[in-house]
Amino acid sequence: MLVGIGLMPHGNPVLNPEDEETRRLAEVLEEIGREFSKADSYVIISPHNVRMSEAFGVIMAENLVSWIGFGGIELPGDYQTERELAREIYGRAKAKGLPVVDINFASLGGEYSRFPLTWGELIPLHFLEKRPLVLLTPARKVPRRILVGFGEVIAEVLEEDEKRIAFIVSADHGHAHDPNGPYGYAPEAKEYDKRIMQFIKENKLEKLLSISDELINKALPDSYWQLLVLYGVLKKVPMKVKATAYACPSYFGMGAALFVRS
Amino acid sequence: MLVGIGLMPHGNPVLNPEDEETRRLAEVLEEIGREFSKADSYVIISPHNVRMSEAFGVIMAENLVSWIGFGGIELPGDYQTERELAREIYGRAKAKGLPVVDINFASLGGEYSRFPLTWGELIPLHFLEKRPLVLLTPARKVPRRILVGFGEVIAEVLEEDEKRIAFIVSADHGHAHDPNGPYGYAPEAKEYDKRIMQFIKENKLEKLLSISDELINKALPDSYWQLLVLYGVLKKVPMKVKATAYACPSYFGMGAALFVRS
Repeated sequence: MLVGIGLMPHGNPVLNPEDEETRRLAEVLEEIGREFSKADSYVIISPHNVRMSEAFGVIMAENLVSWIGFGGIELPGDYQTERELAREIYGRAKAKGLPVVDINFASLGGEYSRFPLTWGELIPLHFLEKRPLVLLTPARKVPRRILVGFGEVIAEVLEEDEKRIAFIVSADHGHAHDPNGPYGYAPEAKEYDKRIMQFIKENKLEKLLSISDELINKALPDSYWQLLVLYGVLKKVPMKVKATAYACPSYFGMGAALFVRS
Repeated sequence: MLVGIGLMPHGNPVLNPEDEETRRLAEVLEEIGREFSKADSYVIISPHNVRMSEAFGVIMAENLVSWIGFGGIELPGDYQTERELAREIYGRAKAKGLPVVDINFASLGGEYSRFPLTWGELIPLHFLEKRPLVLLTPARKVPRRILVGFGEVIAEVLEEDEKRIAFIVSADHGHAHDPNGPYGYAPEAKEYDKRIMQFIKENKLEKLLSISDELINKALPDSYWQLLVLYGVLKKVPMKVKATAYACPSYFGMGAALFVRS
């Protein structure tokens, strides 16, 4: 069964918070870690692993290994894939006609069947006790209803599983908060972040559908697509919001939310 | 334009040949390297990178970096992706209705957009001068005509390109040659290897379609699917066979072939 959901950022600042808001954000991440210490495994969706335009990825490689940190911050990490669960998610999504591929690597099994992890997975996982996991990847060029549909499939599969599974959504928000940042300044970054954090606090993720492509394109988040998947999960398994936090200590916004069973 | 095709093995024995047949095989690999020193870039299809059941992969990551060697033999390697060509292959295959995905990783561009290489790519590339390349991956659970069709698309795209491009097929053959090997012994390994090398020497790859699934399943090659892609390329751009070699110094068969413009 699905025991809860963590929306978690993957920006380096949460590893070493330097201001009050970021400290509060890191506290919520630690709370998510404590809450999910009861989970047997995680399903994590990350925007910084495989990036396919029009297909969701289900990583089938047996071993998931740290490979790329951001800005020189290298976190170690070595996880096992919960392959049976991965196969079930892949099979169910495919049966529903969703655009999904199963991604193994090098060998079909054994030590050579391994896949690289980046900061997009390693930073959220840093706050969680070590468990087997399933790594999923979103896609930006699929219709919104398909993203929501993928979330519904994930929820169904996790709900039917005997194990206690937490769903982790790795996401950062607007990346255009700082005129001196790599993406420059756009007021839409603040607007986007404000709206999505409000929808999360209100627990009304259906409002995500009101966000225009234009706002997304200007705000430059890496969250919108995973948030639609999250909305799909919550449509199937409604939960309550136990904690949220937001900080923007550099050029991009970071948010955290803990959803637990009602 | 397509300047030629190299069928190249990826087994460690070619790096340090210990018998006459393997030495002859390595010589043909060196000949392929010399022949393609005139190429501007390579398109390589490998069975030991991304392994998806039902979709071809076109790797879009900017940087391709050595990550996994086999049996402790680690070859270095750091290549640039020819992204425009990769996009063209992806777009054309998709437009033809083939099951294909574009695979970027971590970031859309820049230093973090990188993807791991294995022995499946690094050993063939070891025999070739360094060039930008496009990495493709085959799929085992697609119909044979779709594999041939992917080859036809590749040939069309390479033929239309202004650059001189060599197509590299990474493949080993039967893996059940040795009762003490990891896959045990099956007489079908020898039979499979004999047939495919004969088809290659005769330059009659259409005969690949006569090989039964049963023979493939017992011989345990990692070549059949790429060979169908190769057949598709040769259907569009017929070439002559300039050199071939075969050796089986351990539990798996290795073959090389150099195809050049007629």
